This record gives sequence, structure tokens and C-alpha cells, in this order.
Amino acid sequence: MNSLPDRLAQIVGPSNVIPTPEPASPYLNERRGLFHGRAAAVVRPGSTEEVAAVVRLARETGAPIVPQGGNTGLVGGGVPDEQGGAILLSLTRMNRIRAVDPEGNTLVLDAGATLAQARRAAEDVDRLFPLSLAPEETCTIGGNLASNAGGLAVLAYGSMRDFVLGLEVVLADGRIWNGLRTLRKDNTGYDLKHVFTGSEGTLGIITGAALKLFARPRAVATGLAGVATPETALALFRRARAEAGPMVTAAEIIPAFGMELAAMKLGRELPLPSAPAWYVLLEFSSVSPAALTDVMQRVLEDAIEEREASDFVVANSESSRKTLWAFREAMSDSQGLAGASIKHDVAVPVADVPAFIRQAHEAALACVPGCRPCPFGHLGDGNIHFNISQPEDMAPEAFIDRWEEMNAVVHGVVARFNGSIAAEHGVGRLKRDLLTSVKSEVELDLMRRLKSALDPEGLLNPGVILPPR
Amino acid sequence: MNSLPDRLAQIVGPSNVIPTPEPASPYLNERRGLFHGRAAAVVRPGSTEEVAAVVRLARETGAPIVPQGGNTGLVGGGVPDEQGGAILLSLTRMNRIRAVDPEGNTLVLDAGATLAQARRAAEDVDRLFPLSLAPEETCTIGGNLASNAGGLAVLAYGSMRDFVLGLEVVLADGRIWNGLRTLRKDNTGYDLKHVFTGSEGTLGIITGAALKLFARPRAVATGLAGVATPETALALFRRARAEAGPMVTAAEIIPAFGMELAAMKLGRELPLPSAPAWYVLLEFSSVSPAALTDVMQRVLEDAIEEREASDFVVANSESSRKTLWAFREAMSDSQGLAGASIKHDVAVPVADVPAFIRQAHEAALACVPGCRPCPFGHLGDGNIHFNISQPEDMAPEAFIDRWEEMNAVVHGVVARFNGSIAAEHGVGRLKRDLLTSVKSEVELDLMRRLKSALDPEGLLNPGVILPPR
Repeated sequence: MNSLPDRLAQIVGPSNVIPTPEPASPYLNERRGLFHGRAAAVVRPGSTEEVAAVVRLARETGAPIVPQGGNTGLVGGGVPDEQGGAILLSLTRMNRIRAVDPEGNTLVLDAGATLAQARRAAEDVDRLFPLSLAPEETCTIGGNLASNAGGLAVLAYGSMRDFVLGLEVVLADGRIWNGLRTLRKDNTGYDLKHVFTGSEGTLGIITGAALKLFARPRAVATGLAGVATPETALALFRRARAEAGPMVTAAEIIPAFGMELAAMKLGRELPLPSAPAWYVLLEFSSVSPAALTDVMQRVLEDAIEEREASDFVVANSESSRKTLWAFREAMSDSQGLAGASIKHDVAVPVADVPAFIRQAHEAALACVPGCRPCPFGHLGDGNIHFNISQPEDMAPEAFIDRWEEMNAVVHGVVARFNGSIAAEHGVGRLKRDLLTSVKSEVELDLMRRLKSALDPEGLLNPGVILPPR
Repeated sequence: MNSLPDRLAQIVGPSNVIPTPEPASPYLNERRGLFHGRAAAVVRPGSTEEVAAVVRLARETGAPIVPQGGNTGLVGGGVPDEQGGAILLSLTRMNRIRAVDPEGNTLVLDAGATLAQARRAAEDVDRLFPLSLAPEETCTIGGNLASNAGGLAVLAYGSMRDFVLGLEVVLADGRIWNGLRTLRKDNTGYDLKHVFTGSEGTLGIITGAALKLFARPRAVATGLAGVATPETALALFRRARAEAGPMVTAAEIIPAFGMELAAMKLGRELPLPSAPAWYVLLEFSSVSPAALTDVMQRVLEDAIEEREASDFVVANSESSRKTLWAFREAMSDSQGLAGASIKHDVAVPVADVPAFIRQAHEAALACVPGCRPCPFGHLGDGNIHFNISQPEDMAPEAFIDRWEEMNAVVHGVVARFNGSIAAEHGVGRLKRDLLTSVKSEVELDLMRRLKSALDPEGLLNPGVILPPR
């Protein structure tokens, strides 16, 4: 008998089976170093049929399959475990734009195409694909679909799930489901695309997608306001919504601590003179030409009059616009400047964001005195990245040792608001065992029934999402 | 042993078990007379716990359960078959608004609440619940969810599925899944709400829902334009979209034949002097106060200059606005004035609507010479109600005898465009057997796996959606 890598090479060609552990290392390790996987083989199929053939071989040999896109995930959902028996299946060779229809506002593409490719394909026909994530040049559409990615444009456009018109999926038994429809309405039976979207590669391997495109904004206004508290940040967001309605396309909250780290990372001054305790980054956009900068100016002047904001700046050029966003986008990376950090991707109802931030802050400090919470993110949709930097006088390792304890504390506060402990990054391996504490037995049972129905042998991405019984 | 009705009375009280066949007749017959069902009992539980108890009793006795909302469905999905063994479970007693949160833009309510109740609950706090269907005073939120209802606002807001934040569902084994979350983002595992939405009561019984609310429009403009062909109708829609982007909240196409029947039904003159072959009803709306009537006037003047439109009228008052919509809303009912009709609820990609209408028209005439197609509906989302009135000189029964043949002809044209034969009304009993011709074996198998996973004994709404093997 040939070895598994040899048999895989017969399917995809020898150059598309990457030897393990080296040079396959970039496929096997999670980027932040939280997960180090091992695999029997790393394989890069070039077509849907090749993916199906790999799955059939895996089934025959009993090898689990871990599908992977750009390996930019934050919960370990795209790397294998340490047992070493899995086939890592990278979709990155499958990166064709299959069809763009500016009339119908649809885009059909391979799952291994990057988010940036999708955005450019839309721009080339004067349309917008709205998903907006920092790693857009690396992350793939398939990974975005598998994790139901959120990002910076959820408030106006929704999450990845909301952009899906159809999918092509290789099933656990190696059959191909061609559900690549571009219809806006279709009620012919159960909605299978929503079953696979967000299932993190555990129910099927997404190989292609038909996505919605949108009109490109013709006018954009971006501003940054200083506010005293999360409550005033929320008041400012409400004011913006009342005035500009669905033109409010982003409302991000950032604490002074985070802005200071970002300023250090970017080598820039803080953008507001009053050194406020909190910042709100607002963006308005409109597909009609409109004086949005004037609208934003008026909203922010009113906010100052009503003592919601201390001061503000509105971008007057594309470069000043990019500078304001640079602070927000530096938020994750710059936190390393303050040592080790423990991160939480949580969501609560929008109206509860201020109370959540206050209570989680207190709870984190009670857990590790001197720790420095840096809660930032999507005020407008209730999704807060409650990241916590270590105390200044603590060893990084000692702080990281408190990871699970701190998780329990912060997630306990999330539970008070009936919130989510995995708002936009998914469950993966990282949060799998936490599901038992936040999901009812009924809900876990329903999830297991779906898994058994679609992957009865448990070959697809085992260990991800579903906690062991 | 007590009889089934007696045992049901112990759960819901004797007054909430309606004797069959009379006075239960309104529950057992589909409103248009296409389906006449029989049942062992009609039961009206008053709480989620009572629904669960009924399901447990059904399971114990082996009686199938047919859940029903307002019984306004158009595909026979809410009435039992003629075997007479089923329990018809009406949700209409469960009609409480449970919670309204204008800050978070959420509405939590019982599944038996009517669509009109939901819309009023939103209006009471200055918000919009956008689903818009003619039978809003009768149809229920649970029925809207089970069928993933579409309607007049899909272009701007989406279908019912797009409004769902969380569900409460009684499962086939009588357990209750409480998934009533009001979060905007939650990626903690498989998205179960999307599994139950659109499943027409075959996977679980929806008893409660958490829905999204939206800002209420502050400005609305409504206009009606005459155009020569479906191609020019599409050109006009594109022009409107290019100018007004997401403010285009409706774009409905109506043929002259349909307008004439509606005018007769309404006792009104045709609204445009040029007697065009086709009409396009356009609505723009905006949550900001805006001179939308001016924008629409300009768009339509440009369309005349470019010879896309022959003439137009823009409503200058709320009453003239209602008059324009009255023609569109009379479209279904008024068709009876032209005798018997055979109806199709289909969707194709938006750009293919003109070619579809042309080809389906030809195909229908070739099938039954002299028949009078009346294709109308949602130009903006590609969902056309391809209704066909009988030839003037034919007996109604003779025309209705050609129902299946005509279906095959029209659906054959739909297939050329990779379209949907059940765009917004669902599958029910009416289109169940057609699924074998439009779905792949793989897709039908996936649907059956979901059914087996969630309702292994097949007690929930048997005979709906899934064709027999």
C-alpha cells in the first residue's frame, strides 16, 4: 500500500502535498502561538473535485480532515490537534473569481479567494463587498464563511452570513452539494446554506460561494469624538442614529488606554487635545452624493452642546480619514506594548454595553488587581473586545496563568446580560469547552444531532465547536 | 382510556379543543379551497408549556401534529391531510407582545401574534417592523417565520429570516429550545434559528421570536411610471437604484392586463393617460427628512428623456400614495374578475426578469392558446408572480385541468434561468412533489437528514416540503 501522502499526491499532484512537520509549519501553527498542531499530511487541492477525492480518501482511511483558509482565525478552528493523524486541507489554491454580475449585484468565487480579492472584484465593477477585517489580504472567503466573520461594517451591512446567496460544499461522504444560486429569494425547502455557514468546517467543506454585492458609497464622513464614559458614548451613538439613520456605518468605542498604545505603535500624537477617557470613532456613508461631513459636524456639535462629547475631529481628507481608522485598526496589535493580554470576544444587547463594560472592568480588577482592561470595538452592534493587559508589575507568564480564571469572571458578567461569549471570532478549539456552561443541554443536543446527521463518522474538523460529552 | 380530545382538554382546557369537523372547519380548510383537511382534534394551547405537553401527548399516541398560524398560507402548509388522524395545533391564542426595546431595536413576542400586532408594537415606540404582506391582520409571526415570508419590503429590508435574532421552539420530542436571544452577534455554535426558520413546521413548532426593529422612515415618495417593456422596466429600476441607492424600498412591475382588472375591482380610472403596456410602482424612503419626492421626480423625468418611461405620476399626498399602492395590492384578488387562474411564485436573477417574462409568456400561450398571463410583482428582487388567467372563451374547469401541465411549462422556463419555483410562499403540500424535479438528489438527501435528525418519528407536519422517496 502507498502511504497517505503518496495517495494524496495521486489526487492533487506531488507538488501540492506539503511535507510535515516542515515546511508545513505555517499551516500547522496558529498565528498567535496558542495552538500547535500536527498532521499526517498537508494537501492543497486545486478544484472542488479534488477536494471531494481527498475527502473520500480520508473517509476510506479514517483520517480526520481539518479545512483551512488563510489561517488567520483567532480560536484555533483551522489547525489540527496534536495527535498527528489528520489531513490538513488548505483551500488557498482554489482562489478564482468565477463570476461577477454588477446588474444582479452578485459575486461567485472559490472559497480560497482572499477577502481582498473579493473586495477588489466588486470595486472593479463599481460595487461594494462590505465585509471589512484587518487581515483581508490573507483571510479567505471560505474562512470568513466558516466563522461567520463580523468586522467593521456589521452595523450597516451585517455579518458574513448576511451576504450569502448560495454555497458549494463538499460533504463528509465526499459528495458535492451544488447550492450556488444567485437568487434573492428561494423558499424551496430547508435553508442549507445557513447550516454550513458558521459551522467552522465541522459539517462540510465550503469550496465556493455566491455572495451579495452592494452599491458603493459615494460619500463618506469619518469623525472621532472624545467622551467621558461608555454611557455618553452610547448617547452619542443614539444621537448619530437618530440624525443619520442607516447612514451610520460604524460606531467604534476605544478607551484612552487603547488609544495611547495605538499612538505609541503608530508613532503619532493622540488626535484630541482634551485627553478624554473614551473615544468614539464614527463613520457615516451614503450611496448618494451627500454633504455627510456637514451632517457629522452638526451631530458632533450638538453632542458637545448636550455635554455628551468633550471635543471632536472630523476628517477633511482621505489621508486624515485613514489616520483616524489607523488608531482603531492598531488596537489589537498595539496591545503587545503593554505586555501579555487576555482577550474576550463578547456581545451584549447594545443598550447594555455601558453597564457591561463597567461591571466587567470591576470584576477583572477584583480577579487580578492592577490589570488594565482595554475594552474596545463595535459599540453599534454590542460586540466588545474585552481585552485585558497585565498589571505593570507582574510577570507575563503569571498573568497568562490566570487565563481561565479571568475568562470565567468576564463571561460571568456576560451571562448577566444574556450575552454571547463568542460574538464574531467563533468557537474553535479555544472556547469549545466553555459552551457547556453557556448553552442549554437542549441546544447542545440539537447541535450534536446536526453534526451526526451531516458528519456521522466525525471526520470533519473534530474537536472544534462541539464539547466532548 | 380517555379519547384524544379528552386528553387534550386536560392540557389546554375543554374550551380550547374545537370539535371536528364542525366548528373546526375554518382551521381545516385552506382559504382558497385548494386543500380540505381532516383532523382528530383541533387544539389551541395558551402557552409554550401547553404546546410542549400537546406534542408529548401526540408522540405518545403517534398522532401527527400540524402547526397553524393565521391559516393564510398559499401552499397548503398549514392544513392537515385527509387521513383524519392529525392534531391541528393553532398558535393563535398565544399572541402576547413579550418585550419591546426601542434602544436595542428588538421585539420579543409570541408566535401567534399577528403581523399587524408586531407592526403596531414597533410603531408605538417609533420603530418599524418592515415585513409587509396583504393579510397582516390575520397572518401570524409564527407562520411568517415558518414560511420565511417575503412581501413588499424585501428589496430594502430582506425576508422574514433576515429579521430573526432568536427563537423559542417546541421540539418534536416535546422539549423546549429557548433560543430567544436579542444579540446582534452570536457565533457560539451552529445557527439553529436559521434551521427552524422556513421549515414550515416540519422540524419544530416555533412558539416565540425575538425580532429586529428598524428606524421609521421620515420621508417617503411613491410614484408610478408607464413603460413599454419589462426591459425598460428594468432599466428604470437600475436608474432609480443608481440615483437613490438603498432608499429604493420598492420596485414592483405590473402588466396593463393586471392594472385593468385592478381598476375594475377598485372602481377607479387607470392612473396614467398613455395606457402603457407595463407599469412600475416605485417607492423611495429615508429615515432622514429628505426631499425624496424631488429625487423621484428627477429620476422619472430623466427616464422619460431617455425614453425608458412614457409618463408617470408621483403621489403628492398620503391618500394618493395609498391609491397607487391599492392597484398593486388588488393584483391577487382582482384576477378573479378574469375567470380561473393558474399561479406561480417564482424567482430568477434580477437581470433575467425581462427574458424570463418573455419566454414564460410565449410558453404559456403555446400550452393554452388564448390564455392571459399576468406577471406582476417584485422586479427589484427577481420574484415574479406569474399568474395566468384563462382564455376568455374557455370553461374555468377546463383551464384548471391544465394546472400541472402549465406548472411544468412555466417551471421549465424558470429552470433555464437557474431560478426558484417557490420564491416566497413556501413549498407546503402544493409544490412538494415538484421538488424532485428541481432539487438534486444530494440536496434532497441533506434535507431528509435534517428532518430525521430533528423529527426522527416524522410527527411534525408530515407531507409538507419533503417529497416521498
